[in-house]
Amino acid sequence: MASNFFGQIFRITTFGESHGPCIGVVIDGCPAGLSLSCQDIDEELSKRAPGKNSYTTQRKEADTAEILSGVFEGKTTGVPIAIVIQNKDADSTSYETIKNLYRPGHANFTYLAKYGCFDYRGGGKASGRETAARVAAGAVAKKLLKHFQIECVAFISEIGGIPILTPNLDLATLRQKTHASPIFCPDEIAEKKICQKISEIKEAGDSLGGVISCVASVPIGLGDPVYDKLEAKLACAMLSIPASKGFEIGAGLEAAKMLGSEHNDTFEDRTRTKTNIAGGTLGGISTGSPLFFRTAFKPTSSIKKPQQTVSLQGEKVTFQLPESARHDPCLCIRAVPVVEAMTALVLVDALLMKRNAKL
Amino acid sequence: MASNFFGQIFRITTFGESHGPCIGVVIDGCPAGLSLSCQDIDEELSKRAPGKNSYTTQRKEADTAEILSGVFEGKTTGVPIAIVIQNKDADSTSYETIKNLYRPGHANFTYLAKYGCFDYRGGGKASGRETAARVAAGAVAKKLLKHFQIECVAFISEIGGIPILTPNLDLATLRQKTHASPIFCPDEIAEKKICQKISEIKEAGDSLGGVISCVASVPIGLGDPVYDKLEAKLACAMLSIPASKGFEIGAGLEAAKMLGSEHNDTFEDRTRTKTNIAGGTLGGISTGSPLFFRTAFKPTSSIKKPQQTVSLQGEKVTFQLPESARHDPCLCIRAVPVVEAMTALVLVDALLMKRNAKL
Amino acid sequence: MASNFFGQIFRITTFGESHGPCIGVVIDGCPAGLSLSCQDIDEELSKRAPGKNSYTTQRKEADTAEILSGVFEGKTTGVPIAIVIQNKDADSTSYETIKNLYRPGHANFTYLAKYGCFDYRGGGKASGRETAARVAAGAVAKKLLKHFQIECVAFISEIGGIPILTPNLDLATLRQKTHASPIFCPDEIAEKKICQKISEIKEAGDSLGGVISCVASVPIGLGDPVYDKLEAKLACAMLSIPASKGFEIGAGLEAAKMLGSEHNDTFEDRTRTKTNIAGGTLGGISTGSPLFFRTAFKPTSSIKKPQQTVSLQGEKVTFQLPESARHDPCLCIRAVPVVEAMTALVLVDALLMKRNAKL
Amino acid sequence: MASNFFGQIFRITTFGESHGPCIGVVIDGCPAGLSLSCQDIDEELSKRAPGKNSYTTQRKEADTAEILSGVFEGKTTGVPIAIVIQNKDADSTSYETIKNLYRPGHANFTYLAKYGCFDYRGGGKASGRETAARVAAGAVAKKLLKHFQIECVAFISEIGGIPILTPNLDLATLRQKTHASPIFCPDEIAEKKICQKISEIKEAGDSLGGVISCVASVPIGLGDPVYDKLEAKLACAMLSIPASKGFEIGAGLEAAKMLGSEHNDTFEDRTRTKTNIAGGTLGGISTGSPLFFRTAFKPTSSIKKPQQTVSLQGEKVTFQLPESARHDPCLCIRAVPVVEAMTALVLVDALLMKRNAKL
Repeated sequence: MASNFFGQIFRITTFGESHGPCIGVVIDGCPAGLSLSCQDIDEELSKRAPGKNSYTTQRKEADTAEILSGVFEGKTTGVPIAIVIQNKDADSTSYETIKNLYRPGHANFTYLAKYGCFDYRGGGKASGRETAARVAAGAVAKKLLKHFQIECVAFISEIGGIPILTPNLDLATLRQKTHASPIFCPDEIAEKKICQKISEIKEAGDSLGGVISCVASVPIGLGDPVYDKLEAKLACAMLSIPASKGFEIGAGLEAAKMLGSEHNDTFEDRTRTKTNIAGGTLGGISTGSPLFFRTAFKPTSSIKKPQQTVSLQGEKVTFQLPESARHDPCLCIRAVPVVEAMTALVLVDALLMKRNAKL
Repeated sequence: MASNFFGQIFRITTFGESHGPCIGVVIDGCPAGLSLSCQDIDEELSKRAPGKNSYTTQRKEADTAEILSGVFEGKTTGVPIAIVIQNKDADSTSYETIKNLYRPGHANFTYLAKYGCFDYRGGGKASGRETAARVAAGAVAKKLLKHFQIECVAFISEIGGIPILTPNLDLATLRQKTHASPIFCPDEIAEKKICQKISEIKEAGDSLGGVISCVASVPIGLGDPVYDKLEAKLACAMLSIPASKGFEIGAGLEAAKMLGSEHNDTFEDRTRTKTNIAGGTLGGISTGSPLFFRTAFKPTSSIKKPQQTVSLQGEKVTFQLPESARHDPCLCIRAVPVVEAMTALVLVDALLMKRNAKL
Repeated sequence: MASNFFGQIFRITTFGESHGPCIGVVIDGCPAGLSLSCQDIDEELSKRAPGKNSYTTQRKEADTAEILSGVFEGKTTGVPIAIVIQNKDADSTSYETIKNLYRPGHANFTYLAKYGCFDYRGGGKASGRETAARVAAGAVAKKLLKHFQIECVAFISEIGGIPILTPNLDLATLRQKTHASPIFCPDEIAEKKICQKISEIKEAGDSLGGVISCVASVPIGLGDPVYDKLEAKLACAMLSIPASKGFEIGAGLEAAKMLGSEHNDTFEDRTRTKTNIAGGTLGGISTGSPLFFRTAFKPTSSIKKPQQTVSLQGEKVTFQLPESARHDPCLCIRAVPVVEAMTALVLVDALLMKRNAKL
Repeated sequence: MASNFFGQIFRITTFGESHGPCIGVVIDGCPAGLSLSCQDIDEELSKRAPGKNSYTTQRKEADTAEILSGVFEGKTTGVPIAIVIQNKDADSTSYETIKNLYRPGHANFTYLAKYGCFDYRGGGKASGRETAARVAAGAVAKKLLKHFQIECVAFISEIGGIPILTPNLDLATLRQKTHASPIFCPDEIAEKKICQKISEIKEAGDSLGGVISCVASVPIGLGDPVYDKLEAKLACAMLSIPASKGFEIGAGLEAAKMLGSEHNDTFEDRTRTKTNIAGGTLGGISTGSPLFFRTAFKPTSSIKKPQQTVSLQGEKVTFQLPESARHDPCLCIRAVPVVEAMTALVLVDALLMKRNAKL
């Protein structure tokens, strides 16, 4: 069953495995006339790149995009845009020793049951590596959104139980502060505490989870009633990111504890509400107030600490990552550009869908 | 843009407005040979029916389903199943006085901007009434799941900040206790406190939010990698329910605060893990352990308390629900069968998709 | 597998069986703001209505549409439009005697093999009755097309081997002449010969096939490269009509016998070609020249003449339609409004898709 | 709008332009466990390869496939299969002189109007080159069909008005004779006449059209009622091939001239009909009798003869292909493997859909 695509009008299909020759994406439905270069994509890929500091994996991917089709004389032509990213730094040998074990928190257990096979080299399709293709697609979506003055910023809002002070910043400042931080954290005080904690946990061979927030400035009218509510599409997009465990929009889970008189955003005038507790949608459609939502990520499943498990043959064994294997102590840092990319993909699809909302 | 369908193989399209002649659903893709009667559907509809007690709205809908097609001699035939439910108790007159106001927490603001019109009578398509059609579709999905020994139970796990004690019950007992409760709450002690709180809040003309949990017993292998992860589909389904604000699977937002060594479920043997912190999926595919997830709902937007708002012409006015208007002080109670229905729809689609996973 | 929908943006799902309570359609994706009434639909249904003269079946359906949702204060609202048509004149008793036979040229053979069941009453879902729902949907599509100055006319161009003289008429005259004819034939001389032939064949208990042509005036730019070429969508639409056996656009099968220098339409200026042998598309996209194509229909399968067949149990038997059964000696006459409806559905979808072709 | 995909379950998305770095396809939905190698694909690509003899273009493509993902240890894994084919022999310089002209019979006219741009180098996306990616996808589909004992053979049945004698051969012999012919013509006598005619026409700087027939052995039950009738899907697939102008199944256009008593296939026993005038389907579902259909192709639009046209600026000019440009005098020869590939894609999708037809 075809299930590797995302979006209705601006539709992406991603392919590739962690240790295959490359990963890639085909974007079907991008309007013609958008300026697009490899550099646009590489800029986004560099945000996701590991090895920039000690808080993320040391695998040096140095990702660069190659546009195979869909762009002519610097502009999109209306036909599919295919992009590939070579897998340059994939060494499969370190996986040989663990290929016959069920890995705690990993997908090889379910893949083997469902498909009868599993590409154990770096997790194959189940690897977070797959998300680089999403970031490439998101770069195109963001370029298109920019044309319509829509933008979004994702940032770390909690790691290891340490929250940031909720920023009350304009989007430009928020982006600037976020990207100045090695861990995409716009709050410098929290950043220091978090970095300290990551170092400790890494030393202990363990890993941390975290929360990514995202804010977007959007016009009124994005999203559709019933099943394609904007928050439903966003929730789907966020929960499709590896390791995500929860999604909240506006007051989120806290909304369940509020009274109606507290939660309702009353209208200031015909264009906006006084408050924005809803998080930017009503009835599944954007209100024009900032869209904001949060996504929770579990701690990285791959840890250096030994763990009990069983082999594919059923023997109880101790699982330990090979020394040479490189992994993130807190993968949600690298998920920040992925959240931003998926958000852009949801928004661009909703924007193009809106063109047919009325005569 | 077509956006009122849900599912890929077992696909539903719902239609109808709160105060139109009826609401309904067309189910496209139900396999032939399933026994199905109106009674199967009415049983589910009766769970959602209001007016059963003072904790929900007094609108007396007495919903009954009419099967228009797709069933012959008591069994599904493989062609579309169309079901309609008449709107018997829809009195539009009480909406006349408020039809020119933006209603806090309601969708008329966004609908007017997007579509240039709004059916103000009871909220039209934006009304929670629409969910009765989902429950009808869910009844068919549940019948199909039962054939494959799959079942799910949704229940209230928190209202007005009062949580229930997490039940450690088998599904059959959980269902029995849940459906014995007028508010779908399997914990009798919490139920009493919650009912007390609802009464107080109702008296005060205000409303409460809450959380619905859902547990399902499923085989290994449901869900697909990347964009159709089981949790992504569930998150989409849950956030498509009116008034929902958040979704969590397994440890959910708490997962963000855990260590990898705490969160990883280690393998007991080749068929299962010792713990089930993940909530029943790995890599987006069901593990065979119970699936469990939670959905948060905001308090009902329609409250009796006066609220400031503006008219469609921009004048500041006080909005007050007409005395005759009937509304839930806590609509998440009536959302319980909707959560169950949407879960069944996600599961049945994943189940049918799985048939083509391998040769 | 969901397979009863047609269209991507303006998507219809049809339901209902010949002898069930009704047939119907849900239109998902119609833009808001279109004036629409039951009368708009009834006018189209009346074209398809049988019993108007002796050349078509005497079943008196007197179809009238009921709009269940999607229209408020006379205009579409952007939510699904559900339409039902009651089955008033369905007498199932005449099918009792033949319910255990494989009917030559009918679908019960394949349905039984595929689904394990068959609604024998009037053909169930396989009945041509189903096409009334398409005509209802087509009426909405035509209303929308009219808003954009797009129109199409289908007409009989051959029956029983008798061709009409190819009309070189403007669309308005062509429509007027077509609808003045009891058999939708714009050529009066051919009409007489055809009516004569139908009478003879009917007398003989046999049936005739025919060809329906369709002409449409469309702007440049409808249709998409590769799989959604306008002619591919039209071919799919035409071959989805019961009893259709072939499709041609432009010179059609004759094109295979032409030279490149004969077939190429050379350019008159920057807006159009001198000739229009292509039939109105280049590279799958409309050129702005009139679109024209033909669809061939087999003779009606239900004939009064006795035919050899076998029972469901495998016994050789003679099959003879009950005297009371009413059938068309030449069903392609009644297929004319269906061709027009399906054409409108293809065009409206292509038109809405085009809105996102460029920035 | 996403429109470059084909299929519902076994879904392909093709990309690439004639003179870009490569063309390719992503196959989403292929079941896991199918043996697959580059050689499987290259064998099919070689059938489409030009330059084999003087009857087709001399462009030497020497296509070879590279599998980028979806295959592990020689078998499909259930994740997307990405395949690319490098464009080795693409010299764009010969298109410089004609890039500012509307080319008769070509798509640059419609692309420019729709997208505001056109990749003039070899036709870009509108080039027949795109079909190599379909053949690659078809190779995978054929491998899967073979697993289920389903096969199809396409062959030339008419060129330049010269028909072949309809072969009454088993599929194995038909394939052997077809592939022994340089022009995929299983009738040696017709082959000689056709080759003679092609030589003459080529000499005259002109081109020929033709008809491709296809026969497939399929089980009963493929295809779905209403819009996904097997013939509707085939018609869509055939009319999506560049230069196709018509489609017929069974008696096709001739059916329109037959009587019901002549056209009906009567039943021999419970498993099959005596004749197969229908061409292998009833009610849109395969009967188990051989499926056969024909597709008509126009003559190649690119001819050496001078033609009148206009420039993009509107000046009348004489268009003449550069001497160095290489083109087929009769492109329908090279379309034979494309017809076979598209047929395989339709059949494999119908086959996988059938798995969910009943409980």
